[in-house]
Amino acid sequence: MENKRYYGIDIGGTTVKVGLFEDGKLLDKWSVPTVTADGGRQIIPDIAASLRGSADGAALAVPGAVQPDGTVNRCVNLGWGVCRPADEFTALTGIPCKILNDANAAAFGEQRLGGGRGYESVLFVALGTGVGAGVVLDGKLRVGARGTAGELGHMCWDPTDTAARCGCGHIGCVETYCSATGIVRLAAQAGVTGMSCKQVMDAAAAGDSRLEAAVDKACDILGWAIASASNLLDPEAVVLGGGVAQAGEFFRRKVQNAFMKYAFHTCLDIKIGLAALGSDAGMIGSALFAAED
Amino acid sequence: MENKRYYGIDIGGTTVKVGLFEDGKLLDKWSVPTVTADGGRQIIPDIAASLRGSADGAALAVPGAVQPDGTVNRCVNLGWGVCRPADEFTALTGIPCKILNDANAAAFGEQRLGGGRGYESVLFVALGTGVGAGVVLDGKLRVGARGTAGELGHMCWDPTDTAARCGCGHIGCVETYCSATGIVRLAAQAGVTGMSCKQVMDAAAAGDSRLEAAVDKACDILGWAIASASNLLDPEAVVLGGGVAQAGEFFRRKVQNAFMKYAFHTCLDIKIGLAALGSDAGMIGSALFAAED
Repeated sequence: MENKRYYGIDIGGTTVKVGLFEDGKLLDKWSVPTVTADGGRQIIPDIAASLRGSADGAALAVPGAVQPDGTVNRCVNLGWGVCRPADEFTALTGIPCKILNDANAAAFGEQRLGGGRGYESVLFVALGTGVGAGVVLDGKLRVGARGTAGELGHMCWDPTDTAARCGCGHIGCVETYCSATGIVRLAAQAGVTGMSCKQVMDAAAAGDSRLEAAVDKACDILGWAIASASNLLDPEAVVLGGGVAQAGEFFRRKVQNAFMKYAFHTCLDIKIGLAALGSDAGMIGSALFAAED
Repeated sequence: MENKRYYGIDIGGTTVKVGLFEDGKLLDKWSVPTVTADGGRQIIPDIAASLRGSADGAALAVPGAVQPDGTVNRCVNLGWGVCRPADEFTALTGIPCKILNDANAAAFGEQRLGGGRGYESVLFVALGTGVGAGVVLDGKLRVGARGTAGELGHMCWDPTDTAARCGCGHIGCVETYCSATGIVRLAAQAGVTGMSCKQVMDAAAAGDSRLEAAVDKACDILGWAIASASNLLDPEAVVLGGGVAQAGEFFRRKVQNAFMKYAFHTCLDIKIGLAALGSDAGMIGSALFAAED
């Protein structure tokens, strides 16, 4: 690792975040607009043109499933179909390049340097428009046999709740309750419409009992899902990230209380904490992943 | 591994199964009665006295939680409290000894040489009096930070089903429906009492519609639990073992159908198969574990 440089590159639907790291320290960071037109074919060339010098490696974090051989199987937000962006990056730059899912990259970043620092086995849950997760066990990111590990958002809470139709085609997925979209939906069910998730959270924290009941329902379901996952994985820590978790301790405490209600007794001392790297988690995690053997 | 010998030792509540393996082949096997009187203090000396020559290593599979440092925290069926049986074994025999949970040992055996052979990432589910599980990812057994990974049996299906009280103190655990005990309970709910799980399965397979509905409910819940676990872990294969799974293809097909109903689309091609090593799985798995780096 000595004096080695790595690029961490988090490709989002509107912006690409690029960071250059040396020996694990951020030297420089910048962003590049994500041009999704024309099947997103300008994205990798634009990133390559922005680089500030060579490096020993790089990793791309992308909003979609990545197969273990590096093939991306559709990134709707980028306009990509089936493609191999890391190969394209290497062809343009000469820099060896890995690729991983963005929730996995954020999980790795948070485990190493963020809310999961000091723990070797961490479940990271990203609560944004959807609900993703990443699993680090024994210090290594575990992406699964198809690269799709961590789909905690599609665990089924209630297969009979036809109001909770999920984009995946199923009914009652955790994502339909616990994502930002899900919390706004629960608020609407409680009779309050036209609020963002942040507004719902703020009003609930300020004492609006109808909205607090909606948030409680989301937190109950999330605590249940995290308990189920913890019973199975037995991690040391769980880290809550994404926009929803920006509600902070108000939110974390409710999730922890629900977790305690559902978790097997051996898991009750699992630390449930908040993410610490904010929107840089994917960029940092991908640079750390690039440096892994 | 060449010409190396390992003992695989599966300690059950009535019998200890001991196998001596050389280069992964079974040379000899025998059993020793489990003497649980007097806090089970004779168990390890009895095993040690039965050994047939020295070996390069051994592993004990035990029916309870094993901490990562080798401490056992109660094995009710053996009479053990907090103890360190592998150290005791080594002190008596001079043979280096590891220790692991019996469901984990069976999972490892089935992944390497049984129903999960050929797959590097396998979820093994043991359906007996209770429901246990073991997780092998990337070719390694993952026992979790506290050694308690795989508690799929204590995922909560229905927190409102007060008829499904679990020994763990919670309500609606998977174990209360999908274990042998759970299936007998569901049969009783359907009005048929006095049957063993095997009798329920046999009658259901022979066309008793009330009992088939009870089995269907158990399989639906198990398929849901396996789908949730698969969404999270993304294994290549799931292996169903334990007494309940001896109902064979009749049972496996029902679980597979339920799995397909609940699994995220990326997981639909996961192979759901039956265990192949029978009651030797723990003995075989512990010998393989003993030989691991």
